[in-house]
Parts: sequence; structure tokens; C-alpha cells
Amino acid sequence: MAHDVIIVMGSRSDLPALESSFKLLSDFGVSWTARVISAHRTPDVAADLARNAEANGTKVIICAAGMAAHLAGVIAAYTTLPVIGIPMASAPFNGMDALLAMVQMPPGIPVATVTAGNAGGKNAALLAVSILALQDSALREKLKAFRKEQTEKVLADDAKLQAELN
Amino acid sequence: MAHDVIIVMGSRSDLPALESSFKLLSDFGVSWTARVISAHRTPDVAADLARNAEANGTKVIICAAGMAAHLAGVIAAYTTLPVIGIPMASAPFNGMDALLAMVQMPPGIPVATVTAGNAGGKNAALLAVSILALQDSALREKLKAFRKEQTEKVLADDAKLQAELN
Amino acid sequence: MAHDVIIVMGSRSDLPALESSFKLLSDFGVSWTARVISAHRTPDVAADLARNAEANGTKVIICAAGMAAHLAGVIAAYTTLPVIGIPMASAPFNGMDALLAMVQMPPGIPVATVTAGNAGGKNAALLAVSILALQDSALREKLKAFRKEQTEKVLADDAKLQAELN
Amino acid sequence: MAHDVIIVMGSRSDLPALESSFKLLSDFGVSWTARVISAHRTPDVAADLARNAEANGTKVIICAAGMAAHLAGVIAAYTTLPVIGIPMASAPFNGMDALLAMVQMPPGIPVATVTAGNAGGKNAALLAVSILALQDSALREKLKAFRKEQTEKVLADDAKLQAELN
Amino acid sequence: MAHDVIIVMGSRSDLPALESSFKLLSDFGVSWTARVISAHRTPDVAADLARNAEANGTKVIICAAGMAAHLAGVIAAYTTLPVIGIPMASAPFNGMDALLAMVQMPPGIPVATVTAGNAGGKNAALLAVSILALQDSALREKLKAFRKEQTEKVLADDAKLQAELN
Amino acid sequence: MAHDVIIVMGSRSDLPALESSFKLLSDFGVSWTARVISAHRTPDVAADLARNAEANGTKVIICAAGMAAHLAGVIAAYTTLPVIGIPMASAPFNGMDALLAMVQMPPGIPVATVTAGNAGGKNAALLAVSILALQDSALREKLKAFRKEQTEKVLADDAKLQAELN
Amino acid sequence: MAHDVIIVMGSRSDLPALESSFKLLSDFGVSWTARVISAHRTPDVAADLARNAEANGTKVIICAAGMAAHLAGVIAAYTTLPVIGIPMASAPFNGMDALLAMVQMPPGIPVATVTAGNAGGKNAALLAVSILALQDSALREKLKAFRKEQTEKVLADDAKLQAELN
Amino acid sequence: MAHDVIIVMGSRSDLPALESSFKLLSDFGVSWTARVISAHRTPDVAADLARNAEANGTKVIICAAGMAAHLAGVIAAYTTLPVIGIPMASAPFNGMDALLAMVQMPPGIPVATVTAGNAGGKNAALLAVSILALQDSALREKLKAFRKEQTEKVLADDAKLQAELN
Repeated sequence: MAHDVIIVMGSRSDLPALESSFKLLSDFGVSWTARVISAHRTPDVAADLARNAEANGTKVIICAAGMAAHLAGVIAAYTTLPVIGIPMASAPFNGMDALLAMVQMPPGIPVATVTAGNAGGKNAALLAVSILALQDSALREKLKAFRKEQTEKVLADDAKLQAELN
Repeated sequence: MAHDVIIVMGSRSDLPALESSFKLLSDFGVSWTARVISAHRTPDVAADLARNAEANGTKVIICAAGMAAHLAGVIAAYTTLPVIGIPMASAPFNGMDALLAMVQMPPGIPVATVTAGNAGGKNAALLAVSILALQDSALREKLKAFRKEQTEKVLADDAKLQAELN
Repeated sequence: MAHDVIIVMGSRSDLPALESSFKLLSDFGVSWTARVISAHRTPDVAADLARNAEANGTKVIICAAGMAAHLAGVIAAYTTLPVIGIPMASAPFNGMDALLAMVQMPPGIPVATVTAGNAGGKNAALLAVSILALQDSALREKLKAFRKEQTEKVLADDAKLQAELN
Repeated sequence: MAHDVIIVMGSRSDLPALESSFKLLSDFGVSWTARVISAHRTPDVAADLARNAEANGTKVIICAAGMAAHLAGVIAAYTTLPVIGIPMASAPFNGMDALLAMVQMPPGIPVATVTAGNAGGKNAALLAVSILALQDSALREKLKAFRKEQTEKVLADDAKLQAELN
Repeated sequence: MAHDVIIVMGSRSDLPALESSFKLLSDFGVSWTARVISAHRTPDVAADLARNAEANGTKVIICAAGMAAHLAGVIAAYTTLPVIGIPMASAPFNGMDALLAMVQMPPGIPVATVTAGNAGGKNAALLAVSILALQDSALREKLKAFRKEQTEKVLADDAKLQAELN
Repeated sequence: MAHDVIIVMGSRSDLPALESSFKLLSDFGVSWTARVISAHRTPDVAADLARNAEANGTKVIICAAGMAAHLAGVIAAYTTLPVIGIPMASAPFNGMDALLAMVQMPPGIPVATVTAGNAGGKNAALLAVSILALQDSALREKLKAFRKEQTEKVLADDAKLQAELN
Repeated sequence: MAHDVIIVMGSRSDLPALESSFKLLSDFGVSWTARVISAHRTPDVAADLARNAEANGTKVIICAAGMAAHLAGVIAAYTTLPVIGIPMASAPFNGMDALLAMVQMPPGIPVATVTAGNAGGKNAALLAVSILALQDSALREKLKAFRKEQTEKVLADDAKLQAELN
Repeated sequence: MAHDVIIVMGSRSDLPALESSFKLLSDFGVSWTARVISAHRTPDVAADLARNAEANGTKVIICAAGMAAHLAGVIAAYTTLPVIGIPMASAPFNGMDALLAMVQMPPGIPVATVTAGNAGGKNAALLAVSILALQDSALREKLKAFRKEQTEKVLADDAKLQAELN
């Protein structure tokens, strides 16, 4: 079965940070699946997934990895689909290693890098949705509704604070 | 006239770094235009461009900015289109300020950040192409041809080096 | 009702760090209010607040935000009032992202950035007071008294230590 | 004679970076003077200047310093006037030392830190103007005109680029 | 009464980190005292202490401070005695601010900076002892004995590990 | 023909930095060759080279790459031979990106990372020689002679300086 | 008795991070021992160990140290055997000090630096094994089996995730 | 002949940065000599110099080194004399490597680290003078005169600027 989005994590320990991706994509009705693939321990699986992704109907690949985070770059090397990278934070360098290892791709093969750390899970999913929404007007409306909702949440927080201060 | 891609730069001085974006998009036959818009000096223009981009037929917005690079985030706040950010390097912090100010968007509004500095110009355009190619099979083929060509260039460099060493 | 100082926070989660701002301004008898406004989720509210602040009698705007902290810059873009920025610390980059995203404003639109993290709450309020005190001699005296008091607290700590060591 | 703004530089070598401050303040008709004062080599002069600044009619003190940039903090310790700091960039740490040494003031004595490096010269002056403008409506109008002018410059750059691209 | 070493801390909260300094100086029989002096809240006390230190018989001044750690530089500005700086670590920048604010003194006024964080307490005291030992052969012998002891501790740890592994 | 060492560079532009590697290996009589292989543009060539290296008689692989330097990790993923990484410095992050992207390999697949920048070329070759010398006593003697020579060069520099100072 | 690998730690407190090295080397049947040697407190022991290592039959030396981590460099200065460095993370700079102090060896004396922090323990041991395996085909097979096993573990994690998602 | 100060540089290329040390010590009439000693290429020379320094009448040792700057630590390990470290700046990490490798000495063996880069040459010499001056009242007076002179230089710069502005 085809999935619009594949979420690849470098290690099962990245799962908690990706729950927000899973939930958001499901809420948007985007078909997705997730994989545990290591750029260094299962490089052939990474290459195969990337090579076949387009033919399998995948539209966007999200990669979450920490440390010398090569996963997104390795995937991007084997596909022309958009690849989104989430730099995971880990000791001792708190994700600065993963950020630089993801975003600083040499010219020719880009990785769309989003917020480092757990906040990246949600933003990667939203970026994927914004890409898919280019060819899906219903999804576009859902994304606008989502934006409106999050705007309203801030407005509500603001109103609540105003009330508390008076 | 509609442009698939709008390239917004925070300052005209970013132009040289974006020539590679212009050339690459033109080579791919992607319609594009470019704007000089400052997140802080012409914020309303930024907001208007972002608000109207979708209705105007724009698919992807590329933003290049340096220092406290808010441009991509400001644009992203007003549109649900995919926004790609290029962190421009400038004295004294060599683009680390722009990288962090672009990529570290709070959850809810992502910016697809690519390589900092001049290399980002080419990668931003390629990321835009990969997104547009999802709904344009001819573009997809061009992207694959481009990839093949750049692969061949490395192979040629490799062959040349082998020859020189023997 | 007019407030001399408006404290804008990017998220309600910034509240604890701002309690010291609230308390200090109240202690000085400065009229203030606080808002939750997101540069990216409620950008129009940010723009409106900034555009109308001067007409509403506001003198100084304090902005606290973390990550790609655009809030102060966005506010500063729409007003000529002094804007003070507090870079909030958050995982994984501990406020270095917020510091650079606040302080590195391009020439033309400054943000008066103070200490990153919770210590910034107090310093932002004190900076606001020192600005307001330029046209309020009573406030100036209070500020001098505050300074004297904090000097005396250090002197007392010093005396206490001397006593303990003997 | 009273000056509204005193610009203190840690070394005469900082002069070029401050020309933009001088010019901008003069353009705004703000009375200013400049001093070479070292936090470490002429600390008493620093203390005296700060102690007497208010009585001398000074409203705002701008301090530019590099390396372990203590100047702004030393000045701020002796006055309750607003103190603006410009972190100057110098080898080998390119101003990161000066930025942290200026902005990270402990709670109780803030320094309003602006953009590091030469861009800081203009922003420090503009921040001073925005503070002075709180009690000077003519200055306020000039600041708004300045802002409008710089907005128009960006608009002109944008128009020029549009023309070039067509 | 004269003290060979004065330990100045920027805040009473630095006390725990300095216990190792106190203990080590006492163990060496070096006369010392400690002060709480803030470079920014009690600058005159700092200046007075530094100005009078030599006349009071002080030989070395140790300064511990965090954040924009100006204390050592301020003290050094008013004395020609050797000044040792301990960069204290604090949120959010973990002492990198204090390290740069201490060590990067401009040419003309050095601060002898030691290890950042709590390890600095012991090393500052040892550096002071090594300086005092230049004119005190008994102290020199004690320092050599101390070194021998710490060497023996490592040798014992090594022997213990060897035993455990066999 | 078998080569003991293969030097892989991510781009032909890395050649100048590797001349010291070439020269040193040749001086030691170690058989070597060099390749231009891109982790992202010719990933299959990288995988093939790594997969076949051992069977081809290769003992050590040296990889030089900049930016998000995945090359060494990609090679290491496909071979159990020792892989040495040289983080090349490039704008704007001066090799910190390459260093972290090389050294921070996740547990299971190490990369032996040496000095960043041009100095890495010599050190990578020397590390390769030290590995090869484990099974080649003649090479071991050459390495000792090399060490002696470089020691003598420092001794000569020292003697020269002594002479100049007298 | 000869040990193929000696693991030297700068302090007994590094032991927990090295348990993975011990276990991995034992699992591979590599003979090893471990030492506590301080570059600064027992420098002669360090020099002796390094000088005699080759004659004692040692093949590879692993050094783990934190802060200004000189241990690996000091050892490398006295031997031509391959020296592997593990930068240990410690407060306040989280191992960035140790990483730079290890990897940035000047040209002439390399240190093969692996992952900073606890993950380095495993990678240092694996690097040592890959070096020893060059002359030990049985070890080479074990290393391939280890690699296969860790690949299978990722495949199993991937399969498990697939199952959970369906 | 005895020298009060020995200046050790890790490489002859550090000479230019140390000219200010040489000149300053000579101006103060302090006897000094300089050596080229490599922590890694001539470690025994380093150890011998350090071991014999006190017996040879040396009072203070200044060490200048770049990259993984172990020189000061290695010297400090073999002597109880005060050791001053100058972190030399070099590509690609601009002295941050040398600073951390020098200042972050583990507890037990301090290095008195001064300003990174060329400014460190002067400050190291001044710190040495301040230490020697503790037992040499003539030197103390010279140091005070030096300080006065540099104060007057700043005062003159200040006066000159005042004149130019009027």
C-alpha cells in the first residue's frame, strides 16, 4: 500500500520525539508509515527505500536522526523526492552535531531541515503537509483550519492572561 | 502572471548568492520571480506577498536572509505554502545567527532550511524543484537528468584523477 | 487604559520567567500589562499592538521569546518605540538561538537585548524603568533607591561572610 | 555643554565602526559627543563620566567595546541612565566574546545590547533616538520619517529588481 | 591583619564552588580571606579593595564570577597584583560567557584565567600557591608534597584497577 | 593492482589539502591511490569501493570531506576496514560542521577522525602508516625515523632561536 | 603478559563510560588491560607506558580523557602505535573542550578521535578491533559477524515498528 | 645563566605573536629567554626544561601554543612554577581549540591562561611581571609606571578625539 509520507528514524529511541509527527499526519488524514533504518547499520535498506520510494507512491520522506546525522543525506542521495530532516538532540552536543550534519548538505542534494529536538517532530509533519497540500485542496483547507486553530489557541492564552491581570 | 517560485531576499546585497537559484530554476523551466523584501523595513509587503501568494498561483517561496534572519519566519506566518530558508553568512558570526534564526522555528510554523551561505542558493532551488516535481512528471525527469549529470561530473572528476595518478 | 510598559511573551510558558518583570515594574509603580502574542501564530496581533502602541500611550515594549525568537524584531518593525528583548532559554540550544535571533537585528531596526534566560526578566524591567525615568524624576529616585538597596544587599552579604570567616 | 548622548569607545580603533552612530545622531539633530575611555586602563574616568552623566544632562550612553567587553557594564554600574552596548568584533573570536561579555549582565544592572560588529553602530544610535523621542515629539517625527525612508529604499530596491527581471 | 590571598566572589551563591579554594589555602597554611563584591553593584568596594590590596599586604587576588564576568577585570584595573579569574558556570550558557568575559582581557591588563566551573576553585588556589611559593621555600616544599600526593593517588587508583582486572 | 591506502575526497577541490597525504605516503613507500567520490552524488560508487576494498587488498581508507561530511560514515558503513576522516574546512562554518558530522558517529561504526583542515592531510596519512606499520617492521622503522626527523627539526628550530637570542 | 590493547583513562571516574570498551574487546577475544594514568599528575607513567608499549606487544592504545584532554596526545608523543582518543564529556562545556583538545593535534602526531561521550567507548573498541583485524582473519570474521548482528538488530527494530503500526 | 622567565613556543611560527612578550620583558629589565619546544615532537625536552626550571632559577614559564595546545599543560605537569598559557589562534577554529585545551586543566595542575591570539603575547608578559614584582619593588614601580603610561595613552586618545569633535 502506498503511503504519502514515510518517516524514517535512525533508532527506535527516536520514537517518542516522532509521536507528534504521527499524530499530526493522522489528524490531517495523510497516509504515512514509519521505519527504523540506520544510515550506517542498514545502509542498503536506506538506499532501497529511497530508490523505490517514488515508484511506491511516496511523496515526502521525513528523516529523524541524531549525532553525525547522515540519514537524511543518505536517503536524499537516492531519491529526488523532497527529504525533510529533523536533527535529534543527544548528549553531549545537544543536537548541534545533528543540525550541522543535516543542514549543511553540499550543493546538489538538499535536505529540508526543520527545528532541532522534539519540536522538530511537529514541524516536519507540517512541512510535509504543506508540500502535499499543493496538489490536494482538501488538505490545504485542513492546513488552514489547523493554522487558524493554533492562532486561536494563542488568542485564548492572551485573553486568559488579560483576564488574570485584571 | 503567476510564478511557481518566488525568491525573496532580505537585501539586494544577497543577489550574488542567489544567481545560482535563478539560473537553476530557469534551466529547469520553472517560472520564478524575485523580490527584495525586508522583514523589518517592509513588513507589510512581506505579509501581503505571503498572504496573496497562493491565490497568485505561487507554489513555493524561497527566502534568503542573514543576521537575525526573520524573513522566512515572517513569510511562513502568513502562508501555508512551503517556505524554504537560506541562512546567509555575514560578519561577524558567519551565518550561525541566520541559521539558528531560521531553522529553530517554534512548533506550528516550519521553515525548510537549507545549507548556510552561498551553497544554499542552489540547494534551495533544487528543493523547490523537487517539491514542484511531485505534480509535474516532466520536471521530475529533468530533476533526474540533473542528478545524473552531476553524478557524471563526479565520475569524470574521479576518472580524471585516476588518469593523473597513473 | 494606558500602560507605560507592555510585556509581550511568545508563549504562556514564558510566564514564570517574567514574574520578576511584573513584580519589579509594580514595585516601581510603573503601569504595565502583559500579552501572549506569537510572531508566527498571531502576527497580525503583533503588528496591531506595535502599530497602536504609541497612540495608546505605551512607552516601552518588552518582548520575551525563545528559539528562532522573532517576536521582538516583528514588534520593532511596526513601532518606533524602544523595544527590549529577552532571549528565553529552551532545549536543545539553551537560548543561543534566541540570543542571536534577537540581538543580531540588521541595521535600521534595533532591539535592546538583555541577559538571556530568567535573569533577563529583571533586567528588561530595569532597563524599561531607566528609560521611563528619563522623564520622571520620582521614578529616577526610586531607581536610585533600588540600586542602593541592591548595593546594600551585597554589602550585607559581604559583611556576613566576613563575620563567618572570623 | 550638555550632550543628550555620549558615545564611549574602548579604543580609538573603534572609531570607524562608530562613524555611522555619529552621522545618524547628527542627522537627527541629537547633541552628542564621543569619548575614548578604557574600562581597564582609565577606570576612574569611566566611573566619573558615568557618575556625572545625569547631572551633566546626558540622557543615554552608548558604549562600544570588543574582547572581554566590560566597558558598558562598568559604565552601567555607576549610572541609572540607559546604557547601550555595541559588541565590537575582533580576532580571534569575532565578537562572540564581546557579545557575551556585554549582554549577559547579572540581574540588577542591564545593558541594552545591539547588533554585534559594525552594524551595531547604526542600531545603537537608532535605539538612543527612540529613547530620546519618548520626550521629544519632533524627534519622534524624524524617526518615523527615517523609518519611512528606509522602507522606501527597500521598496525601490524591490522595484529595481522587478524591472531588471522583466 | 594582612592576608596573602583575597578571594572575591561576585555573589554569595558562588560560595560552594570556592570551598575547595578555602580548604586548599588553609591546608597550605596560606593566610586568606574572602569577600562578596559585585563588579556592578558594589563597584567602589571592588575598586577600593584592589587599590589598597598591595598596601594591605595582599599578594594575589582570586576572583570568581559568572555570566558577563567583569569582576576580575575590574579588580585588575585597579591593582598591579596578579589577579586570578575563575569563570563560574551558570544557565543558560554554562560558563562560556564567563570564560570569554574573563580571559579575553585587552592587551595591558591580564587576568590569569583558570578552569571554568567548580574545578576552577582548586586550580585558582593552586596557582596562587605556586606564585606565593616563589618567595617562600617552605610553601614550595608543601606544593611539591601536594603534587606528590596527588600523583600517588593516581598511582593508587591505577594499582587498584590493575588488581580488579586480574 | 592493490593499494594499501585509498584516499577518497568528496570533491576535486579537496586535492590541495591532500597533497601532503600523497607525498607522505609516497615517502613512506606505501602504495596508495586516490578517488573523487561523493557520498551524495555517487553513493553507489562509495558503497562499491567500500564493499570491495578488503577483497582488493586495501588496508586503510582515508576520507576527506567538508560541510555535512557524510563521506567517511558512508564508506565506514560498507566496510570493516579502518576508516580515517579528515574534516575539511569551508565557509561559512569553518569545518565545525565537518568535524561534528565525522566524529560523532553513532555507536557501532567508528570513524577515526583527525585534525580539521589542511593539517589533517598529513595526520591522516601518518595514522594510516602507524596502522600499516603494525604488520610491517620496515615501515615501523621508517615511521620512527620520520618521528626522529621531525623531532630534530624542532630541536634545530630551538637551537636556531637560542642562537638568535644570544 | 602482552595485551593487544591498552585502555588508558585519565581518571577512575571515566570507568563507567569504558565498560562498553571492556565488554566489546572481551567479546571479540582481544586481550586488553586498562590503566588509570593522568597526563598531568603521572606524566612519567604515561611516557613510560607509551615508550614501552610496542616492545610489550601492545598494538593499539585507547585513551579516554575529559576537559583539556591531553592524555591521548601525550601518549601519542611517545609511541608510533595507533592511538585512539575518546573525548569524555564533563561540566561545564560538555566535552567540546575534550573533543578539540584531542582531535586538533598538530601535523606530525595524529590521534584517531572517536565519538565524544559514552558512545565513544564502544566506537574506540571497534576501531581498535578493525585495526587488529587487518592481521587476524578470525577477528575479521568476528567483526563482520558483529556488524551483521547489529544490522539485524536494526532490521528487527524496523520489523517490530512495522508490526506495531499495522 | 639564569632567566626569570622562559617563553616556550610550540612552533617557530608563533614567533611574531611573541615579539610583544620579548619587547615588554626587555623593557622591564626582566631576564628572559625563549625556546621552541613541541609538546608532541620534543616531549622530553619539554619535560626536562620544566623539571629543571626551578633549579635553574626560572620563576615563571610562558607557553604559547595553538590547536590542541598541550604545551602549557605538559610543562605544568613537571614543575610547580607558575605556568602562563597563551592560546594561539590558527585555522580553522581560530583559537577556540587552543583556549579550551589550555584553560580547562583538570583540578590539581593549573595553567594561568591569558587572552587568545596575538594580544596574549603582551598580557602573558605583563602577568609574569606582576608575579615577579611581588618580590622586586623596583619592578613593581616599573609596572606602575607602565600602567600609568598606558592610562595616559588612553587619556591622550580621549583628548585628541575631544579636540577633533570640537
